[in-house]
Amino acid sequence: MPEADPAPDGATKGRSDLPRYDELPAAGRGGRSAWGLFGATDSVGLLNLQTDASVLAAAGLVRKGSVFSLNAELDAVDPPLDPDRAMFRHRVLHQPGPGFEDLDDVLDNFFPQGSSQWDSLAHVAYSPGVFYNGAADDDVLTGHRNTIDHWARRGIAGRGVLLDLDRALNDGGGSYTPDGATAFSVADLEHARSCAGIEFSPGCIVLLRTGFLGWYRGRPRPQRRRLAADLRAPGLEHTEEIARYLWDNQIMAVASDTFAVEVWPPAWGAEAAPFGFLHRVLIGQFGMALGELWWLDDLAADCAADGVHEFFLTSAPLNVPGGIGSPPNALAIK
Amino acid sequence: MPEADPAPDGATKGRSDLPRYDELPAAGRGGRSAWGLFGATDSVGLLNLQTDASVLAAAGLVRKGSVFSLNAELDAVDPPLDPDRAMFRHRVLHQPGPGFEDLDDVLDNFFPQGSSQWDSLAHVAYSPGVFYNGAADDDVLTGHRNTIDHWARRGIAGRGVLLDLDRALNDGGGSYTPDGATAFSVADLEHARSCAGIEFSPGCIVLLRTGFLGWYRGRPRPQRRRLAADLRAPGLEHTEEIARYLWDNQIMAVASDTFAVEVWPPAWGAEAAPFGFLHRVLIGQFGMALGELWWLDDLAADCAADGVHEFFLTSAPLNVPGGIGSPPNALAIK
Amino acid sequence: MPEADPAPDGATKGRSDLPRYDELPAAGRGGRSAWGLFGATDSVGLLNLQTDASVLAAAGLVRKGSVFSLNAELDAVDPPLDPDRAMFRHRVLHQPGPGFEDLDDVLDNFFPQGSSQWDSLAHVAYSPGVFYNGAADDDVLTGHRNTIDHWARRGIAGRGVLLDLDRALNDGGGSYTPDGATAFSVADLEHARSCAGIEFSPGCIVLLRTGFLGWYRGRPRPQRRRLAADLRAPGLEHTEEIARYLWDNQIMAVASDTFAVEVWPPAWGAEAAPFGFLHRVLIGQFGMALGELWWLDDLAADCAADGVHEFFLTSAPLNVPGGIGSPPNALAIK
Amino acid sequence: MPEADPAPDGATKGRSDLPRYDELPAAGRGGRSAWGLFGATDSVGLLNLQTDASVLAAAGLVRKGSVFSLNAELDAVDPPLDPDRAMFRHRVLHQPGPGFEDLDDVLDNFFPQGSSQWDSLAHVAYSPGVFYNGAADDDVLTGHRNTIDHWARRGIAGRGVLLDLDRALNDGGGSYTPDGATAFSVADLEHARSCAGIEFSPGCIVLLRTGFLGWYRGRPRPQRRRLAADLRAPGLEHTEEIARYLWDNQIMAVASDTFAVEVWPPAWGAEAAPFGFLHRVLIGQFGMALGELWWLDDLAADCAADGVHEFFLTSAPLNVPGGIGSPPNALAIK
Repeated sequence: MPEADPAPDGATKGRSDLPRYDELPAAGRGGRSAWGLFGATDSVGLLNLQTDASVLAAAGLVRKGSVFSLNAELDAVDPPLDPDRAMFRHRVLHQPGPGFEDLDDVLDNFFPQGSSQWDSLAHVAYSPGVFYNGAADDDVLTGHRNTIDHWARRGIAGRGVLLDLDRALNDGGGSYTPDGATAFSVADLEHARSCAGIEFSPGCIVLLRTGFLGWYRGRPRPQRRRLAADLRAPGLEHTEEIARYLWDNQIMAVASDTFAVEVWPPAWGAEAAPFGFLHRVLIGQFGMALGELWWLDDLAADCAADGVHEFFLTSAPLNVPGGIGSPPNALAIK
Repeated sequence: MPEADPAPDGATKGRSDLPRYDELPAAGRGGRSAWGLFGATDSVGLLNLQTDASVLAAAGLVRKGSVFSLNAELDAVDPPLDPDRAMFRHRVLHQPGPGFEDLDDVLDNFFPQGSSQWDSLAHVAYSPGVFYNGAADDDVLTGHRNTIDHWARRGIAGRGVLLDLDRALNDGGGSYTPDGATAFSVADLEHARSCAGIEFSPGCIVLLRTGFLGWYRGRPRPQRRRLAADLRAPGLEHTEEIARYLWDNQIMAVASDTFAVEVWPPAWGAEAAPFGFLHRVLIGQFGMALGELWWLDDLAADCAADGVHEFFLTSAPLNVPGGIGSPPNALAIK
Repeated sequence: MPEADPAPDGATKGRSDLPRYDELPAAGRGGRSAWGLFGATDSVGLLNLQTDASVLAAAGLVRKGSVFSLNAELDAVDPPLDPDRAMFRHRVLHQPGPGFEDLDDVLDNFFPQGSSQWDSLAHVAYSPGVFYNGAADDDVLTGHRNTIDHWARRGIAGRGVLLDLDRALNDGGGSYTPDGATAFSVADLEHARSCAGIEFSPGCIVLLRTGFLGWYRGRPRPQRRRLAADLRAPGLEHTEEIARYLWDNQIMAVASDTFAVEVWPPAWGAEAAPFGFLHRVLIGQFGMALGELWWLDDLAADCAADGVHEFFLTSAPLNVPGGIGSPPNALAIK
Repeated sequence: MPEADPAPDGATKGRSDLPRYDELPAAGRGGRSAWGLFGATDSVGLLNLQTDASVLAAAGLVRKGSVFSLNAELDAVDPPLDPDRAMFRHRVLHQPGPGFEDLDDVLDNFFPQGSSQWDSLAHVAYSPGVFYNGAADDDVLTGHRNTIDHWARRGIAGRGVLLDLDRALNDGGGSYTPDGATAFSVADLEHARSCAGIEFSPGCIVLLRTGFLGWYRGRPRPQRRRLAADLRAPGLEHTEEIARYLWDNQIMAVASDTFAVEVWPPAWGAEAAPFGFLHRVLIGQFGMALGELWWLDDLAADCAADGVHEFFLTSAPLNVPGGIGSPPNALAIK
């Protein structure tokens, strides 16, 4: 039964008194640690910043009633970008009876991270065997700590803001294209934010449009296949400044239209600094929700047209006990 | 690419001038027909009643910022209630690398109608071989008319209202229990509406709580297995009055916490009147969205507590090209 | 790599000095125990009776060169007879390239015991938590004791004999039909053996034709569905005499054209004698290979025609590490 | 029901009067055509050379009773060599009851060509849209011409002979290794045949051991992954001489321990001669059974030890209606 998670021991959910990044304790392998801020057993991470007050305020951003669906089709990315996955199979089942007819359908080989997705806090560990908030492998695999159902049970709603890097970086004659491994610095993000005319707010959800998914989908299949064999995409640069920036702005989620949010490829060897593979820090230390391969082009066109880059965002992940990822099932409502 | 459906030929979406039920033309096998009201190629049905204005108004129902997730767990119904289905299989895949660790997961045998779900307009035909708006088998199976992706592309948002039949029928000493095949009449619905203190509005989404899912989940597995072999559940009675009532109130969707919305079993033989199996009429003629096995108990407890039975409801179905059903991925936000 | 199983400690494989049934030690819950006869770590059971000598002798039974395939189609049993299974899904994948074309295919939801099958020694425990030769749950699930790959690695070959009960019991005016729960006694088996004109030999494989599968397949689907809901089938009676008879004849495998070899339903409650559910004894104590839903009708017709009821039988189960069942992939060669 | 294929119109199965290669008519895109030799509707190809007489003679090759299983484990090749496939998932299902316990299992994402396999005559077309014996796409996909069930229904049995190229080419100080794209000429095959001390016979099954699978399985996973991205393997050279040699020796099947039988990569562009991709000719024109990734090392070691390179071979493919490939489920019995 969709039980609410117990209140974390001693923690006030939705705390507004988050320490600054530089006040956080050092993490074992470098960077700063947010473990324990929401209680020792917390499995939700920065979604704790979602409060009744933040939701109520965000709902007020609905000003014209337009709805934008942010789920790309389930088969939008073909072939899969991860060689350990393969495309789902969908079958429609025909069940005619005497005097009536109905259809059913079934999905096999469905990888929830194959198209638009949330990464749960169980997706990437901070270091081998240690996930967000200190959860061990077994805590995750058997105990379902950090898994997607924790988010599914509470639902996600809040203020969404769009940083349209694709447009912002081409403003005034830029030559950005989404087909390479462009790394976005804090200055780039600030430029896009300034173009959007918005401020961040505690618990906001930042949508980062790079133009990647729209570009990718226009490629012929052989080119998409080559891309899968030699993955690269624009995204957040691999620096502590980026981590500090996201944390200090109390952003609870970042979703982009690439497969990784951060610039790809990362540096993820054993010797790499933790910021070489940002997932490790953002998911494994901060407990930040990362969204990938979201469909942002329709929303972005509307934002460009009306100049409004903030909206009410709702998302209801699949309620899979112990699930690792999920389509976001997100709507932006302006 | 999530293209918006083309505007249906000659139709004004969100038309507020819907004819009354008794003004509709007769349907071939009995009852009345709504085909063509939203254009000859419409695949969305009564969701056309969702307009910018209706969404804007509904967002105003967010008054305290509480979020209720209406997706039961994906394995909430076990064993499956339909003998042609079987339980999905979920596997977490472990991919350790040098210096990092990530998890992925995959679902097999995933029937989107196995737990909380929307029935798309492709789920049940009005008569064998003829679906909503006159679509033939091939139009649906190959041409993807009426399939779930049409709803996924636009997103669903609007005013939700809760009719808590389980509480209303036990008010004043009633003895309703959700374990039998209780048929709800128009009077029962009106009673529950009156208890809720709400009016319907064009394009509203009615949540019908019977108490079934909560009751079912408290049963031991052998009893659940027997239930699967001898299906019965409370729901809308099999009458034209019910159909007329839903239509004339311009309700665009009805979702319940049973597997069928209507009382079960139906009378669906070739000789039965069309109202013997309401799906045929509600889906196949009206193009009404039917939701099943939604988790309504948490929301209902809150409504009972604060006396407010209306809310903003959002839903983003899975974007499966040609899909028949989907988890609703619905949130009620009060 | 298909490594041969290590020789079991201290055991001589293919021992011809098997004790008589009544000389076996008592088993914990009743009946006699064969554990340890082929070594403490044996996972192969009575297939140890397959020796170079027995194979060589059996090959001599090829007298005319006729080959009979004993695998029914994978979808021969529809709907599945077990409510916890469902029909496999088969998809052909089309991969056209420039100047060539090839096809691939894939199976989902494939239950190896859904059609013609071997039960491995991991299929049914002697008593809860204790499988053949004393293996615990974990020995089987993790350690792969008793699983199908042990048989797959060695291959199965030997003398097959057919007992055609369907014909034998209708000889001289009998009125046997395969649609009920007829229990076959030792006398029935002896009668069929006598009709067949054969003797058993150590390590022989007995094919038991009841006529069930042929009958079942001629039924319309609604009747097959009712059968699945109320399973019954002819088979070996639930007595110690049957167990003694099979053991004392040193039969290493029994395969029938029903889903259970033994008469169905069994008496398998906690209070039932072990012979109430023969699988428990034949698999869990004897380590006997049981085959189910084999297609015997073509072979039987040939045996009836030429009067020869013995043949060379080969079988190569799927080599699934840790697998529980497998299609037999068996040929009878006369 | 496993019906025997109807006798092909006007053809004598097992005909011993096959024309010589150079007497065959020219095929459309080059090379020679064997279409029609076994009747216009034949779906079995050179397996027609399997006759009662050939089976009877082959059974006589059982001289000591040793059985060799030629199925590698189902997960022997990991990661998959074809980017459009992915590894199967195996799940053991635990169904404890009162007083008994049984296990069941299920496979998902099972590609029958993922490990040891037969290619059916539906696997590769002679030219786009035209399969063996002139079958069109629809004949195969819907009509099930050339599919694996045709072989499954009859079963495969005959004389097997082993050409151990890995040993033969290293005889007398050769330096052959199985890790490159070594192409075997007719002279190489004749050398291996001479080393084996055998002659071919009509309808014999040639096992071609290159050493590839054993070598591959000894590689660490990263190296196997690189191999999957840059496929190469030893095999038959891409010449008409090879095709003529196989045909004129009336070989009905060739199975190797590589993934392709022929040297890899092939030349399969639209402009390539048909012999650039031998599958096209051997399967699409000759109707020859090709086996891939068979486990030959145990058998080969025995042949090297006793000097006997011929044996009785049996194979029972999975009986999948319309199936494209199958594990061979083959035994070599010496």
